[in-house]
Amino acid sequence: MVEIGVLLAGCGVNDGSEIHEAVLTMLALDRLGVERLCLAPDIEQRDVVNHLSGEVISESRNVLVESARIARGEISDLAGISAADLDAVILPGGFGAAKNLSDFAVAGEQTEVHPEVLRFLLEMHKAEKPIGAICIAPAVLARALGAFAPLVTIGNDLPTAKLLESFGAQHQECPVDDIVVDQQNRLVTTPAYMLGPGLWEIAAGIDKLVSQIVSMVA
Amino acid sequence: MVEIGVLLAGCGVNDGSEIHEAVLTMLALDRLGVERLCLAPDIEQRDVVNHLSGEVISESRNVLVESARIARGEISDLAGISAADLDAVILPGGFGAAKNLSDFAVAGEQTEVHPEVLRFLLEMHKAEKPIGAICIAPAVLARALGAFAPLVTIGNDLPTAKLLESFGAQHQECPVDDIVVDQQNRLVTTPAYMLGPGLWEIAAGIDKLVSQIVSMVA
Repeated sequence: MVEIGVLLAGCGVNDGSEIHEAVLTMLALDRLGVERLCLAPDIEQRDVVNHLSGEVISESRNVLVESARIARGEISDLAGISAADLDAVILPGGFGAAKNLSDFAVAGEQTEVHPEVLRFLLEMHKAEKPIGAICIAPAVLARALGAFAPLVTIGNDLPTAKLLESFGAQHQECPVDDIVVDQQNRLVTTPAYMLGPGLWEIAAGIDKLVSQIVSMVA
Repeated sequence: MVEIGVLLAGCGVNDGSEIHEAVLTMLALDRLGVERLCLAPDIEQRDVVNHLSGEVISESRNVLVESARIARGEISDLAGISAADLDAVILPGGFGAAKNLSDFAVAGEQTEVHPEVLRFLLEMHKAEKPIGAICIAPAVLARALGAFAPLVTIGNDLPTAKLLESFGAQHQECPVDDIVVDQQNRLVTTPAYMLGPGLWEIAAGIDKLVSQIVSMVA
């Protein structure tokens, strides 16, 4: 039985996982009959954003607890998961990847990946298990795996792509309905809402990403 | 240009809108090239549930603000919307329908629909505009439109169906991949996570519901 992790980072595009990207990832896994294991680190969010006004509010929320909303409660603390537990993992996008899984949103070239996330991604890479990343989440891969010259896409945002290259990554432009595959490092990335415009368009790229990951596991 | 409302009730199955059902509804609308207008009432949630532990926590959150997470900020206060603004509306499920849009989760036979939601649903019904409801949300329609003997489904949960009948509704059993249509009242309902088991199964019923609603508008 193939089991693929979905690494979440909260619940909502501005301070957590992008909800549409996360659900479309889970839908694509379900369609292929693949078991999913939702995961998140048990840490406080960097911030909480009012998604109506766009303003940061003085509240604190936990990444694992909020991610459980997307997972309908079926979620595991990343700290208890090792590469041996999964056949592959996929990281949806949203600012949570750049605020909680890493500090890319604020640190730029000085980005650090959260130690638990870094430990897990390095384990998966060493075990040659496929890793997918959507939207801005490839920035986390670029930083964590920069020493291995990973090939990724975040669409066509060139200033952001330059930052990823400063980590050691190679960036390839890619349209919303397509994917970039790094066979050497076993990575698959797609731009999704880095380009948009809508659910139907991003679903095309996410479906391709999930199919590619599953074919690499098989 | 057809524009269909998606009436949200928060963000998360246990105290708001069921996220998967909401996103699948938006995906199906997108696929058919239909504009969506996300809506929610500007009210406090009945409660806030930690979706990891399942416990109610001492926090307050606003239905419109939390719904904005699913809508990526593109959402309108229900109070400013009348039937003239939309061609149809769809209510995803989740406990938010039974805790925020109504008090069905706690009041049973004495259920009241929130006045703003009741005003809007009666306007839509009077204007003969189609209304879709998913999962437990048909309970809101049953109460709001009970005087018109609406035909709905919530799957095969007979005690809950009996409650809906006490409001004046007629209940019809329905599998997860199908819909029940009330041509007279222009209502379409599907069980989704009242039956489950997974995203792919509930997507089949939600796709049919959205297609039926769009065909009734056309």
